[in-house]
Amino acid sequence: MTEMTEMAEMAEMAEKDMTPREIYSHVDHTLLRPEATWEQVRVLCDEAVKHSTASVCINPGFVKEAADYLAGRIPVCTVIGFPLGATTCESKLFEAKQALANGAAEFDMVINIGALKAGDTAFARKEIEALRAALPGKILKVIVETCLLTNDEKRRMCDIVCAAGADYIKTSTGFSSGGATFADVELLARAAGGRCGVKASGGIKSVADMRRYLEIGARRLGTSSAVQLLG
Amino acid sequence: MTEMTEMAEMAEMAEKDMTPREIYSHVDHTLLRPEATWEQVRVLCDEAVKHSTASVCINPGFVKEAADYLAGRIPVCTVIGFPLGATTCESKLFEAKQALANGAAEFDMVINIGALKAGDTAFARKEIEALRAALPGKILKVIVETCLLTNDEKRRMCDIVCAAGADYIKTSTGFSSGGATFADVELLARAAGGRCGVKASGGIKSVADMRRYLEIGARRLGTSSAVQLLG
Repeated sequence: MTEMTEMAEMAEMAEKDMTPREIYSHVDHTLLRPEATWEQVRVLCDEAVKHSTASVCINPGFVKEAADYLAGRIPVCTVIGFPLGATTCESKLFEAKQALANGAAEFDMVINIGALKAGDTAFARKEIEALRAALPGKILKVIVETCLLTNDEKRRMCDIVCAAGADYIKTSTGFSSGGATFADVELLARAAGGRCGVKASGGIKSVADMRRYLEIGARRLGTSSAVQLLG
Repeated sequence: MTEMTEMAEMAEMAEKDMTPREIYSHVDHTLLRPEATWEQVRVLCDEAVKHSTASVCINPGFVKEAADYLAGRIPVCTVIGFPLGATTCESKLFEAKQALANGAAEFDMVINIGALKAGDTAFARKEIEALRAALPGKILKVIVETCLLTNDEKRRMCDIVCAAGADYIKTSTGFSSGGATFADVELLARAAGGRCGVKASGGIKSVADMRRYLEIGARRLGTSSAVQLLG
């Protein structure tokens, strides 16, 4: 408790008695495995409708089918430059614009981690701003892959994500060496200071994890296990 | 030995005394980690030139810099729809055409694994044919992610890859639950029957592995460890 910010304490007060339904309202119900079939994505969509999740989070190849199927009942979230973030800015833009045309309402883009590692934060910012401009009125989340970053890099990215006008900073792709941690979500929530939201993703394995992430400042949870965990 | 084809036996005769330099000539010298910087890619390029590897294999975001830096000394290979293969066909095409314009000479695309799993092999073939048509005269490799496929799916993909006019079938991205295996490379080499080459990639951990893969029918090896292993 001593390390928690006042904001996080307030969040804890508000969130600790959350019902499963309230937790579901923060969940991006996720299926990103490369071998997933449309039938499996359709089941995901049905579960999302049943539990009123924040969105379904799926690969770009399924956006059109899912958006047509859901017909606005649940927002479709997709991933851009995923999961390495190491393609070109132009490719990320193409992918995002096509997903927008196909009916996506939320976009989780991966930053160019190599550029950040080389100190080229201007490039990272330019990419986010380009996506932001291409997706007016849509929710943009920026995946920074915290397991590969130093704490200083995480804080720097938080400033960049907020300044570029994105809606959320998101911890992890779920395809790297580690997922969300409580320490990282606390760090990002503190650094964001309410300027943008925090999405905890990768390795969420229990309802206690879900509650705790929401308590310490996450506003969205990315997980493939919500139904398994919350029932 | 009893399971090896005549072709593989002939390959073994020819390859068993390969020098490191000969092995290098089959290596796609690879750096695909998302946190790689241009400085690290530049070192990879220098190593590729020094050892005359078949190519450097890098993420699309570095193709232009690497092609400019190498100036034709070593072919630049890049990855398309990597590593999930779950983006749209149009995105893969955009990515490939831009990499072509930026100087790439070899293209390792990931198939839509979900479509294959759903039995839609026509879609898998259509994607490969679209890339093939967009990249005339260039080397096209098709990553099928063997660790996620049944043996029947591997054989079916081998027929599709060959029929679509690709140059190689490639086992693995290196980012899934498993990499190349001897059994899979033997299966693919037998199924291809010389109609296309086989690239073994993912988890190559020794010179003995490299020799063995070449002996049983691989013509290319995708590895980040060539210099560490071969000196």
